[in-house]
Amino acid sequence: MKQMNSIRDVETVDLDSQNQALVIIDQTLLPNRVEVLHLTELKDIRDAIYMLKVRGAPAIGVAAAIGIYLAARKIETEDYPAFCREFRKAKDYLAAARPTAVNLFWALDRMEQVVLHHFDSTVGEICGFLHSEAIAIREEDIAVCRQIGEYGLSLVKPGDGLLTHCNAGRLAAVRYGTATAPIYLGQERGYAFRVFVDETRPLLQGARLTAFELCDAGIDVTLICDNMSGSVMRQGWVQAVFVGCDRVAANGDTANKIGTSVLAAVAARYHVPFYVCAPTSTIDLAAPDGQSIHIEERPAYEVTDMWYREPMTVPGVKVYNPAFDVTDHDLITAIVTEFGIVMPPYDESLRRIMSGKK
Amino acid sequence: MKQMNSIRDVETVDLDSQNQALVIIDQTLLPNRVEVLHLTELKDIRDAIYMLKVRGAPAIGVAAAIGIYLAARKIETEDYPAFCREFRKAKDYLAAARPTAVNLFWALDRMEQVVLHHFDSTVGEICGFLHSEAIAIREEDIAVCRQIGEYGLSLVKPGDGLLTHCNAGRLAAVRYGTATAPIYLGQERGYAFRVFVDETRPLLQGARLTAFELCDAGIDVTLICDNMSGSVMRQGWVQAVFVGCDRVAANGDTANKIGTSVLAAVAARYHVPFYVCAPTSTIDLAAPDGQSIHIEERPAYEVTDMWYREPMTVPGVKVYNPAFDVTDHDLITAIVTEFGIVMPPYDESLRRIMSGKK
Repeated sequence: MKQMNSIRDVETVDLDSQNQALVIIDQTLLPNRVEVLHLTELKDIRDAIYMLKVRGAPAIGVAAAIGIYLAARKIETEDYPAFCREFRKAKDYLAAARPTAVNLFWALDRMEQVVLHHFDSTVGEICGFLHSEAIAIREEDIAVCRQIGEYGLSLVKPGDGLLTHCNAGRLAAVRYGTATAPIYLGQERGYAFRVFVDETRPLLQGARLTAFELCDAGIDVTLICDNMSGSVMRQGWVQAVFVGCDRVAANGDTANKIGTSVLAAVAARYHVPFYVCAPTSTIDLAAPDGQSIHIEERPAYEVTDMWYREPMTVPGVKVYNPAFDVTDHDLITAIVTEFGIVMPPYDESLRRIMSGKK
Repeated sequence: MKQMNSIRDVETVDLDSQNQALVIIDQTLLPNRVEVLHLTELKDIRDAIYMLKVRGAPAIGVAAAIGIYLAARKIETEDYPAFCREFRKAKDYLAAARPTAVNLFWALDRMEQVVLHHFDSTVGEICGFLHSEAIAIREEDIAVCRQIGEYGLSLVKPGDGLLTHCNAGRLAAVRYGTATAPIYLGQERGYAFRVFVDETRPLLQGARLTAFELCDAGIDVTLICDNMSGSVMRQGWVQAVFVGCDRVAANGDTANKIGTSVLAAVAARYHVPFYVCAPTSTIDLAAPDGQSIHIEERPAYEVTDMWYREPMTVPGVKVYNPAFDVTDHDLITAIVTEFGIVMPPYDESLRRIMSGKK
């Protein structure tokens, strides 16, 4: 455990240089304390995912890949079937840490494929392949976010006012993030953006995480409440909105953090372009439209009591607390992927990019 | 001071039956404690207004009228000019309690007119007239809200889902409120509304006050975060939005609590009628449009720290915290006044209702 005030010199998820530990920023302590954790034990890694010390779908996937690699190295056998059994046990244990994060299963499956394909290698060799695969998953995340950043940056110009919601930032991935990637790349190139960050009730990821990471990077940040987006857009202060996403359906309907659809309606009202930043891994052609995406509802406590010194409403009042909402495709100006900018009509353009991946 | 759990049997602002005290619900303690205060001293009444123990423009006006009546009765002179001087001193003292609440000045001016018009009455008689005027101001507020409620109720039907923002409720007036008047009248008539209440960041008037008063009245209330309006409207759960207002310009542009314009854009998106409940005292034909309405900005602290156990964002981050926003007139389906429902084009219809007051 190492404490500092900035996250500039540390990445959200990493393998230490001795290949001994998963290195993460403990996000449960942000923005009040930056603590970097070095985790070597499978149980600690699983708990870190479970307790949201590392969060954000891409970041969880990378953490799981590194975690299962570290666990594999500790399996004390040279017998392949025995190794496979122990590997599967560790994988199932990690996979149970979060029920809904698709990237967690995806990354663990990909790591297991490495084991299954090398049935005639030694355990030592397999661990070497697992190391490479974990590093590859991590590097790919960085590359995908960087590409999304490049394409996103082509949609804006220096000095623009940008608005983002929740945290689809570097804290949700390895580096750059998705919705923040154009902002960070622009920062590297002197674009001098003015960035508005929605606080994002009820869990305040915008205030706690996005405002923190962008300020930390020296970017001009203004925090607003979610209900102030109309105010800033009506005054012409916002030239583009960038948000992340949890799932994009075949027709372009997009599930993302609660409040995204509100922001999209306001942006449409004031003719502000609304961009969804989506790694192609989040595009789900099997879901025809937003209706087919299940929206998780979460406990009332998050809205009524969670951060407060005292209860903020009448005890026992009914609360509706959906974690996500669906933004209708016609409110989305473009979807920015690592393979390019996808424009409406989305039912055609999304299928094209997913088949050709170009 | 009397403590209870409900506000059903007490009104927001009242004169006690012995004409000795201003009776108010201490709103700074809601929703966690209902305390009814009996205030007899001018200083205590002024402090109650200053410290938001009584709040909401109509409620403040009534409290000031009752307060200045109680103060007048304590002036120990039978000499008219001396009485006028003391009255003016008390009036200026009360008027300084809140700088922006127009109803405060309006009510105090109206009370002073009573004094000025009765220069040939005795001080005892004048106090009698002041008593009548304070009671009249209070009764008029009830009648105006009730009329707004009647007209508002004609726009909806039993079982409808209604959504409201901030607190334009009975806690902001004497009884009924403005935006809540159709809800309370509907409740009296068995309309069985399902009411969604925005929590209303940053000061949480929706969660603290509106959810409390509606639950207390036995109405079916669901609390949501401001950014969930898109979610509930997209699912067809809301048939009408009712909001209050702070000022309506001549073209219908309306200043109201921050977030109102966001709600209006979302309502337009989902074809949900959006109604502004406005006593004609808030219609300002001297303001041609929203641009001419000054929007108060408030301190960052309200967004970043006010209710929280610990700071919820990075220290010193820039915050934009406007207390109000302007909703464009074309997003407003109708303006509900005590004299009837005003429809677009507002530049004509508002002038007509203000000249004829019918």
